Amino acid sequence: MSELAVGPGPTSAPPALPDGALRTVALGGISEVGRNMTVFEYGGRLLIVDCGVLFPEDPHPGVDLILPDFRAIEGRLDEVDGLVLTHGHEDHIGAVPFLLRLRPDLPVYGSTFTLALLAAKCREHKQKPVLVEVSEGERRNVGAFDLEFFAVNHSIPDALAVAIRTPAGVVLHTGDIKLDQLPLDGRLTDLAGFSRLGDEGVDLLCVDSTNAEVPGFVTPEREIGPVLDDVIAKVRQRVIVACFASHVHRVQQVLDAAVRHGRRVALVGRSMVRNMNIAAELGLLNVPEGLLIDLDEAVNLPESHVLFVSTGSQGEPLSALSRMARGEHRQISIRAGDTVVLASSLIPGNENAVFGVINGLVRLGADVVHQSNAKVHVSGHASAGELLFLYNAIRPSNVMPVHGEWRHLRACGELAVQTGVAADNVVLAENGVVVDLVDGKAQATGRVEIGEVYVDGLSVGDVGESTLSDRLILGEGGFIAITVAVDSATGRAMSEPTVSGRGFSDDPKALDEAASLVEMELSRTEAEGITETHRIAQAIRRAVGRWVAETYRRRPMIIPTVISV
Amino acid sequence: MSELAVGPGPTSAPPALPDGALRTVALGGISEVGRNMTVFEYGGRLLIVDCGVLFPEDPHPGVDLILPDFRAIEGRLDEVDGLVLTHGHEDHIGAVPFLLRLRPDLPVYGSTFTLALLAAKCREHKQKPVLVEVSEGERRNVGAFDLEFFAVNHSIPDALAVAIRTPAGVVLHTGDIKLDQLPLDGRLTDLAGFSRLGDEGVDLLCVDSTNAEVPGFVTPEREIGPVLDDVIAKVRQRVIVACFASHVHRVQQVLDAAVRHGRRVALVGRSMVRNMNIAAELGLLNVPEGLLIDLDEAVNLPESHVLFVSTGSQGEPLSALSRMARGEHRQISIRAGDTVVLASSLIPGNENAVFGVINGLVRLGADVVHQSNAKVHVSGHASAGELLFLYNAIRPSNVMPVHGEWRHLRACGELAVQTGVAADNVVLAENGVVVDLVDGKAQATGRVEIGEVYVDGLSVGDVGESTLSDRLILGEGGFIAITVAVDSATGRAMSEPTVSGRGFSDDPKALDEAASLVEMELSRTEAEGITETHRIAQAIRRAVGRWVAETYRRRPMIIPTVISV
Repeated sequence: MSELAVGPGPTSAPPALPDGALRTVALGGISEVGRNMTVFEYGGRLLIVDCGVLFPEDPHPGVDLILPDFRAIEGRLDEVDGLVLTHGHEDHIGAVPFLLRLRPDLPVYGSTFTLALLAAKCREHKQKPVLVEVSEGERRNVGAFDLEFFAVNHSIPDALAVAIRTPAGVVLHTGDIKLDQLPLDGRLTDLAGFSRLGDEGVDLLCVDSTNAEVPGFVTPEREIGPVLDDVIAKVRQRVIVACFASHVHRVQQVLDAAVRHGRRVALVGRSMVRNMNIAAELGLLNVPEGLLIDLDEAVNLPESHVLFVSTGSQGEPLSALSRMARGEHRQISIRAGDTVVLASSLIPGNENAVFGVINGLVRLGADVVHQSNAKVHVSGHASAGELLFLYNAIRPSNVMPVHGEWRHLRACGELAVQTGVAADNVVLAENGVVVDLVDGKAQATGRVEIGEVYVDGLSVGDVGESTLSDRLILGEGGFIAITVAVDSATGRAMSEPTVSGRGFSDDPKALDEAASLVEMELSRTEAEGITETHRIAQAIRRAVGRWVAETYRRRPMIIPTVISV
Repeated sequence: MSELAVGPGPTSAPPALPDGALRTVALGGISEVGRNMTVFEYGGRLLIVDCGVLFPEDPHPGVDLILPDFRAIEGRLDEVDGLVLTHGHEDHIGAVPFLLRLRPDLPVYGSTFTLALLAAKCREHKQKPVLVEVSEGERRNVGAFDLEFFAVNHSIPDALAVAIRTPAGVVLHTGDIKLDQLPLDGRLTDLAGFSRLGDEGVDLLCVDSTNAEVPGFVTPEREIGPVLDDVIAKVRQRVIVACFASHVHRVQQVLDAAVRHGRRVALVGRSMVRNMNIAAELGLLNVPEGLLIDLDEAVNLPESHVLFVSTGSQGEPLSALSRMARGEHRQISIRAGDTVVLASSLIPGNENAVFGVINGLVRLGADVVHQSNAKVHVSGHASAGELLFLYNAIRPSNVMPVHGEWRHLRACGELAVQTGVAADNVVLAENGVVVDLVDGKAQATGRVEIGEVYVDGLSVGDVGESTLSDRLILGEGGFIAITVAVDSATGRAMSEPTVSGRGFSDDPKALDEAASLVEMELSRTEAEGITETHRIAQAIRRAVGRWVAETYRRRPMIIPTVISV
């Protein structure tokens, strides 16, 4: 049982920020995994850490992306001194172009690889952002904020944590972090630096809580290499490895294994090709001369001489891997003896899609290796054991778990208490909860409203709750549309009513009864002298709605259109 | 790498069944988990084993249930000698009322508890089925088939396996099975009986493959009791335990723990109350006098004196547990210090819903215990280690894995090969693949078409692929409807066109441009002398579709209605 103060927190607007105090508020990323964006305020100036997207799920049909809610800072964009990006994952940088639309000259701080990924994204948006490269060990003033950057290890190269010094105190934001003690690139999470900062005194620690429920330690990334090696050694035909398109170290190990087994490699998927090119140019990915070949060339090589590195590890239906699983890929047909490795996590919510891909591949005869039957994936986020190391190195006065759902935040907070942080100084704050650091004590003082901002196609924000609710109704039950023209003077029907449905039934006669029902209703409204189109429409809606509920027990949307001529 | 013959199997219609041969075909339940139904044919007579439903997922919006496809036997229902039900789970009995609609006098064979659950279901459908109780150890002729029933252990009491003897050979269908060696009710899976049958010779084994990928053995059900005990012992407030409504032994252990800790118990959820009443009446659930109380009474007891046993363990949005998690339950409001136990599996596809419930409960301050943080659930299906025991006891000549997706079927088949079954005698058959046992050798000989049959509201089968495809389009993008009345002689518009959208945008002005576009298009069609309504409608659809794609990059359904007056 927890000693933590739990519950959703305050509901009222926050008070004015006292002089000399520091305010922290998440516009996304806390109480969910995705669209990370935290705003710090001191002395009337703002600093933003990360600005990512959330990938939508079932309750958001048709939505492409969910953005952080910028409303809380929209009127204050001139007061923002800078945007710091901790690393290049989409849930940390994906919303930057949307923020830059509101303030194009906002300086963006990040590491070389992070900014290279952002630059590629901004080019697609036809934006030229103001990019300022920073690196670990660097200390730099950004407006009112004195920043220091620390190397951290994560599932993408060149990730940073950031310390924010203000007269109100020192904040450390870990970004996404784990403590791999044998990282592939030798770039350790700077626990020594964190310890020095801890000596100085950390007033508030914003810490990655994603894996706080998972006991122990994440296996080192480099242990995946030998597993891949064993798998590939046994295959006489094609090998296809799917993984995240930004996981440079995972791809590096796949390339190394390919070299050892005399296989050349084709990269499959637009983001995989783009990101690995960037990584290779920056020297983060070591690609032996002549190893990489085009897909067209690869499919003509003997099957034992080729390996594909592909996107699609989450079962995305349009990805190359899903097309292979359905037997619909133009160039690669899966056959008995091929081996597919899913060197990736299974993000909750994607289970059906991923198992669908696995079943499709198995059905075609492929052997499928995935994290449930071989150690081909490790997480990028610190498990509980690592979080204890972090707390003990940093010794924070106050802790605010970030990057997680409620279950993660609470588990992360409980670990803090176990290392000696006062339960009262652990703040479990969801999106929009305002946390003020006053005289060394962090506390939730109020709340700003945080909604979900949807990107659908080219526009942002015009799809909202009402549209989504209509989509859910239409998606479940379709609609029945009734159209009739009436005489404007008498309300008499000038045509047979048209009754049609979509998403209602495959049976062409399903609505036959409804048409005569509408005719009867029109006779009645005419007899009663009703001529207003909205009253006639209402009568039709009621009659058809009742009929369909009784006859079918379904709830299609009923859409009467009455035209007065 | 597998030695099994893999691949989707034959595509052509099956040949005529040779004299003296036995045919097996699944109308559901193989290559999926759910809607189990297997048909056996010998000498022109049919026997059906199980007739369950599949619960629909994302690609089936608005669908309530998916049924097995009866078409393959629809013209031969008079040739069916009987329906055998192995146990009372919905994926084995849920479609029986739909089969009985086609042949009301079909005799249904099953154990006492199975038939009691079926009878309750049939009462809801106002059916009076012909029920024939059978029990383990019993041997009985059902038409052309000589049946013998064996006790099996599963996550519901009174489950049976069935041996089917015909002159073509002996088939053993395990139903759902595991080998708990310390079952709560002492009713072991009859491995001794299986061994005797093996001595006689089993020509075809249809075996539960659900957990074939999981190494080792399922922990005995009775080990959950002490865990529940430990959890409940620490709680000072309310305890809510959610589990499957048919898991009598799980509920028994919860009741026992409640008694030990001086808590009275309220059952929450219609199916929980109904099933536990049936189980208690049949002596399968032991309920001490006075233990059970009504919900109304329970909420007025001191919080440390009450325990709720609830449905909703899969995050069903309308369940009591989901309402508690959203703070919307009328009688039970969750507070810090309450403990919720999810004593259940997490069915793939339900992750988001279940984690949503957990997060909601944690947010309100509850401690949530679930299978990831405590051993409060064990599976009802044999793991790989148990399957090896089964194979070695039965020593089948031929094996046909059932009750699983492709990945499960294949893993189950590979285990058979490891125990000495010839790889060539393992038949991986998906729904509709016809497996003939001729001269002791089982082989896929053809295929009958198996579709998905949807129940939506009151009707069966009228919602098909076309309706679902429309629902998916409407659910993703909504629609834009354009209605106009034209003069039948000239094609001239008789009214302003009405343009409206639902599920398209929250912005009331989003479609303003479209109306003038339609007017322009109408002027054009009129000028060109076009008067046919379908041609005018087509022109409108094209113009609006192009506009919306360019302006929004979205794909709503475009629905023009042109009325000629």
